[in-house]
Amino acid sequence: MSFVEKVTVQSAATNSILCVGLDPDINLMPAHVAKQQHAIYEFNRAIIEATKDSVCSYKLNSAFFEAYGARGISALTQSRATIPSRIPVIFDIKRGDVSHSAAKYAEYAYDVVDADAVTVNPYMGFDAVKPFIRKEKCVFVLCLTSNESADEFELMETKNGPLYLEVARAAKRWAKEGEIGLVVGATRPDVIGRIREAAGDLPFLVPGVGAQGGDAAAVVKASGSSAKHTILASSRQILYASSGRNYADAASKELSDLCETVNRSRK
Amino acid sequence: MSFVEKVTVQSAATNSILCVGLDPDINLMPAHVAKQQHAIYEFNRAIIEATKDSVCSYKLNSAFFEAYGARGISALTQSRATIPSRIPVIFDIKRGDVSHSAAKYAEYAYDVVDADAVTVNPYMGFDAVKPFIRKEKCVFVLCLTSNESADEFELMETKNGPLYLEVARAAKRWAKEGEIGLVVGATRPDVIGRIREAAGDLPFLVPGVGAQGGDAAAVVKASGSSAKHTILASSRQILYASSGRNYADAASKELSDLCETVNRSRK
Repeated sequence: MSFVEKVTVQSAATNSILCVGLDPDINLMPAHVAKQQHAIYEFNRAIIEATKDSVCSYKLNSAFFEAYGARGISALTQSRATIPSRIPVIFDIKRGDVSHSAAKYAEYAYDVVDADAVTVNPYMGFDAVKPFIRKEKCVFVLCLTSNESADEFELMETKNGPLYLEVARAAKRWAKEGEIGLVVGATRPDVIGRIREAAGDLPFLVPGVGAQGGDAAAVVKASGSSAKHTILASSRQILYASSGRNYADAASKELSDLCETVNRSRK
Repeated sequence: MSFVEKVTVQSAATNSILCVGLDPDINLMPAHVAKQQHAIYEFNRAIIEATKDSVCSYKLNSAFFEAYGARGISALTQSRATIPSRIPVIFDIKRGDVSHSAAKYAEYAYDVVDADAVTVNPYMGFDAVKPFIRKEKCVFVLCLTSNESADEFELMETKNGPLYLEVARAAKRWAKEGEIGLVVGATRPDVIGRIREAAGDLPFLVPGVGAQGGDAAAVVKASGSSAKHTILASSRQILYASSGRNYADAASKELSDLCETVNRSRK
């Protein structure tokens, strides 16, 4: 099954286009979890258990594991193993490198972590993207991100319009060689429609819903309302909904509320 | 001591502006090393021992460690610990992410790996670069890379000239907040002069000398002949100079030859 098919099946089963982003930070976890020896794994395991019936996918953010060195990578692979195999996993690594290095990062993502999809950076062009293309895997290319300084280069005017639209057009071309998607920030719903126009039917991964202030309804309107087109990712709002012993239940509640809000705008 | 000062001291002691890039690949190592339990560490240790008197710095490529998961990261920190503390270490990670993720990658680079410098991707703008700025650390921003598809976006025309020159100008502005350098591919010496003009005195990290076909003399002419301005990195040509039991001696010989060639053009 392709990544998009897998997401579609999972989304239909849970009636959700939401993706929970796992950004485990020991400093933000409830104290009783943070002090455990395998805090990162235990935290993720509890969050996954509490949220797995209301997601279409998970997103693992490599940065939050790498910060803990080798034991962080062990926690990453252990956490990934607790995600039911039916639920697709996006590995948020935003790599971009020459092909022999990119091929090694692809080994990390697919062979070590067993991810179904990755995020990559387009700056170096297709050479840096191609090694991530594999059967049944999806490569999400950074297009327009939600951070403030996205203005500096992503919104820079080229001869054919802003750079992010050139990236969207390139991604559509690259999609002839494999499954390609785009990362589109939720904080700029005004331009998501322009990206959708340039990118055709490519799946969009839209992080920043919730804590980063994204407007879910506007995103769904501009991008599309099915998981095939739009995967809305939320991390901190869900993970750190409570700093008490009830954190997993609080995460579940927060996710259900967000799911309900999103589903209202999908109708 | 700042990164540039540290490189300058080391370069003066070894009469070298060369940086050996450690891209350990078990498939390319001599068979008698590859079959060892700690092959990556043993290979790096031998290469470092054989080359440390002819380099101004080392470059560790994170991709080649991550491909082996948690044990790869252990080999990375163990390898790094065998590099004499006087020799600065550039951690080639090419990360670029929103600030809370970038801060975690900076922890990985500086606190886990104890790197003196990192490489980062500019696509998301200064938000993705700033978390890497720290006292006595240097942040090398990807400017113009040596891969073929660098044409797609890096060379794209903006209103103020090609994108890579806009990145070089931005890096010069960012350098007011900390030590910033640029990654400039050796395969395009014709444009290095233009980047030097835009970037003032920023240090350039120039990978691709040797195996990737860079012309060292042309690079030194366009970029500058001191380690303060130009660090020439070579990886595979040195590491895999021989696939026999003499691989470390062969690496040392290859490095000395390259150093001699480069030093002739520095006069």
